[in-house]
Amino acid sequence: MRIAIQGEQGSFHQVAAEEWFGQNIELVCCDTFDAAFEALQSGLADSAVIAIENSLAGSLHRVYDLLLKTNVHIVGEIYQHIHQCLIGFPETSIDTLTRIYSQPIALAQCMNYLSRVAPNAKLVEYHDTSASVMHVKEQNDPKFAAIAGKLAAEVTGLTILDENIEDNHRNFTRFLVLSTGKNIPANANKTSLVLETSHKPGALQAALKIFSDMSLNLRKLESRPIPHEPWHYQFFIDIEVAGPQLDRCIKALNKQDCQIRILGQYVSNIDLDADI
Amino acid sequence: MRIAIQGEQGSFHQVAAEEWFGQNIELVCCDTFDAAFEALQSGLADSAVIAIENSLAGSLHRVYDLLLKTNVHIVGEIYQHIHQCLIGFPETSIDTLTRIYSQPIALAQCMNYLSRVAPNAKLVEYHDTSASVMHVKEQNDPKFAAIAGKLAAEVTGLTILDENIEDNHRNFTRFLVLSTGKNIPANANKTSLVLETSHKPGALQAALKIFSDMSLNLRKLESRPIPHEPWHYQFFIDIEVAGPQLDRCIKALNKQDCQIRILGQYVSNIDLDADI
Repeated sequence: MRIAIQGEQGSFHQVAAEEWFGQNIELVCCDTFDAAFEALQSGLADSAVIAIENSLAGSLHRVYDLLLKTNVHIVGEIYQHIHQCLIGFPETSIDTLTRIYSQPIALAQCMNYLSRVAPNAKLVEYHDTSASVMHVKEQNDPKFAAIAGKLAAEVTGLTILDENIEDNHRNFTRFLVLSTGKNIPANANKTSLVLETSHKPGALQAALKIFSDMSLNLRKLESRPIPHEPWHYQFFIDIEVAGPQLDRCIKALNKQDCQIRILGQYVSNIDLDADI
Repeated sequence: MRIAIQGEQGSFHQVAAEEWFGQNIELVCCDTFDAAFEALQSGLADSAVIAIENSLAGSLHRVYDLLLKTNVHIVGEIYQHIHQCLIGFPETSIDTLTRIYSQPIALAQCMNYLSRVAPNAKLVEYHDTSASVMHVKEQNDPKFAAIAGKLAAEVTGLTILDENIEDNHRNFTRFLVLSTGKNIPANANKTSLVLETSHKPGALQAALKIFSDMSLNLRKLESRPIPHEPWHYQFFIDIEVAGPQLDRCIKALNKQDCQIRILGQYVSNIDLDADI
């Protein structure tokens, strides 16, 4: 299996991909989300594993836009508890660091820690956590370190100087498993869809009432602009339903002049109200 | 009046600020949204004018987060039709350009145009449209140009090489007028609020049903994560209501265990369904 991810070997995307597909996969590492979608669509990869949301930073809106622009299907989801490590050279002493590299969200997640243990270090933004560790390795300067997951230290052979350094430990990322084939598992219990309502006042409320009348629980509601219609929105909705009950729901929505596109029906095993 | 804006003299923020306050204002130009909020809160500025949303690019989520973190009030809104210009030196011929600077969203808005008229130019991201014009002026190289609004050419004395170059002409930005004082106009007809529902299934639908039962029209619904509660969200809602009817609405929401914070009640004059 060739799996497209955003980022390098050792990134959180790799951890997510291996959780879903096992370790016997060939990674297709892509610099950007656009490139990862392209790898999947062109057949360079068989599947893609792509972050969609972080519990602290919020949704990755570019990924929502790519789901709309392309014709891929969501076939699964992975929740990952994110722990950040400070990674450098064995001889490094943290308080002498002058530069710390990482992806901007990872730097932001460790800001209090960094200002406490390495107040003089300059924070340098990089496009990927794991790539920032590789960069530190190439620079070969013990005054430099990077922030990334544990796997990035294994992959590069550098040393974990400190771990669980994120300021807020309730830090989770949700990843989607994407495929060009529509493969709906028999036990699917969750659907991601895009809803576009008519322009009548109250149209969104009326659409949501359909879910509520059917006792369907919304997991997520995210609005994105419709490019040629200023101030009208598409809503990305995750909802606990699939199969025949979903079909009834779609029929009711169509009657209200809603346009619906199903992005995927898949299995969600996570109890989000539990303390994951 | 000292008005904090994000960006430099000549930016779209200046145009918006002058539309609201007139030309007799003193601009407090800030590099970032954070700095503009800080200027307002510290008393360095009397008001702030801050973009919240573009009809093509979507919401500025950092601004939503700052509205939550700070204690400022929305007292008005401004809609601006955005037209981009290519700005450079009088002797410049567009097809010989080697570098074109601008803010990333502005570059993205002109991508088709640029690949047609200046296919060999390198596109260079800059933090502000108007600042990118100032940078081109300093470089003093007729092979360089920048993308910004008309006012940036006036402010810098450079030349408009081409105008209305955005690929999609239905390109609007909505700005908020912010103040530290709560000043509700008697004819206010719109409210911005933050809604946090209980964690019960269907809680969001139940809350939205209250708006719908009162025939109140939602203008905007935007979700943001709650930092310490993974996968629970706050909803930023713009709704056509103010005054006593708003009070009744809030009471009904409170009864459903919703927490509400009013960000502002103000006058909205725009008919968004008209072809603005």
